[in-house]
Amino acid sequence: MVLKLFYDLHSQPSRALFMFLKLSKIPFQSCAVDLLRGEHLTKEFKKNYSKFQKVPFIHEDDFFLTESIGILRYLSRQYPIADHWYPKDSRKQAKVDELLEWQHLNIRLNCSTYFITKFTIPLKTGKDPVPEKVEKAKKYMVKSLSDFEELFLSGDGPFVFGDQISYADLQAACEIEQPRMVGYNSRDYFPKIKTWLENVRKECNPVYDEAHNVVNMIADDDDNLKAKL
Amino acid sequence: MVLKLFYDLHSQPSRALFMFLKLSKIPFQSCAVDLLRGEHLTKEFKKNYSKFQKVPFIHEDDFFLTESIGILRYLSRQYPIADHWYPKDSRKQAKVDELLEWQHLNIRLNCSTYFITKFTIPLKTGKDPVPEKVEKAKKYMVKSLSDFEELFLSGDGPFVFGDQISYADLQAACEIEQPRMVGYNSRDYFPKIKTWLENVRKECNPVYDEAHNVVNMIADDDDNLKAKL
Repeated sequence: MVLKLFYDLHSQPSRALFMFLKLSKIPFQSCAVDLLRGEHLTKEFKKNYSKFQKVPFIHEDDFFLTESIGILRYLSRQYPIADHWYPKDSRKQAKVDELLEWQHLNIRLNCSTYFITKFTIPLKTGKDPVPEKVEKAKKYMVKSLSDFEELFLSGDGPFVFGDQISYADLQAACEIEQPRMVGYNSRDYFPKIKTWLENVRKECNPVYDEAHNVVNMIADDDDNLKAKL
Repeated sequence: MVLKLFYDLHSQPSRALFMFLKLSKIPFQSCAVDLLRGEHLTKEFKKNYSKFQKVPFIHEDDFFLTESIGILRYLSRQYPIADHWYPKDSRKQAKVDELLEWQHLNIRLNCSTYFITKFTIPLKTGKDPVPEKVEKAKKYMVKSLSDFEELFLSGDGPFVFGDQISYADLQAACEIEQPRMVGYNSRDYFPKIKTWLENVRKECNPVYDEAHNVVNMIADDDDNLKAKL
């Protein structure tokens, strides 16, 4: 039974799942999907690969599954992974779930809306970003980052849930790295996020930099330069 | 150990979790929170009840948990619930998770944005809804409902995953009922959704109507009249 991962490292949840698979040493067949070229939008792709037409997703023989967080949970049952990624202790697992559910309509929605407003929509329409829309999207993004710092980075320890990294750290970090590609580096404005991101990166490297290579190539900031050194 | 549920039945995930607790016969202490009066927004509430300042959430002695889907998963481990709500079979559970994760940025985001644009923002600002914004929100909502029908209601059986109801049915139904309060009843436009909603309602009644009493009181449509008969 071969596990196939379909992904594009431009996508935040693709990066999180890619890192998790590599760091957990789960064997998988790498199947790249080129989102920028719209490879996922054809009828053939919909029929043969994923009716959801988004990444990441997995194929395991005739079992198809999309949604990265559902995939993380499935893999945590199917493979012998280190407990810290998604703890078996019921209350610890519940707190990881709390962040994984919270992030959808907060950092995920708002960091990606900023990215889409500044990059994806102009790319599709051939028109410059609309300044008022960019400002509005930025306001929501900054509020989400501030909430994330207050709600999840107020404890002790290098990671969200103390001394050990979990999948929630990976997912949140990948969402928060995304706007760097359009000129917003949260490290410059949120000191706790800066320290925490560096902890996550160190813990996961060289896989973190491998997953974020595309972000670092596009981003034009100090953290890009550091990654290149 | 007393399980306390903090909720407001105006909130979609509150209704889903309230129904699940009642239908699973999990004993809980009912703690109503009045969202319309802003009870969740005070400093006292943040300090003593929930730093997230949203509903639903639970207290179990000194354990606090928010995010309804994380709570569902926690309760499914802690209490002897019927398997169909959240199956123990790994692949079946993964498919329920797929919908529970998918809905955040699709039916949940778009049905609630329509509701907020037509109701919450005008209530807060004292100004009429902006027609262009209402139309835009409606377009996204209709796309999400269409996607939901295509992706999740194409199989046989009365529920999303065949013959047995799961928590995914509850969560999706509660999101899709929400815009009825501002004049949009998806039953009028999506025949598969209409049939499925009726199946979910019949399976869960009288709890479904109890949870949706507030929706039925505000909605001015045929389904409201039926519920009142």
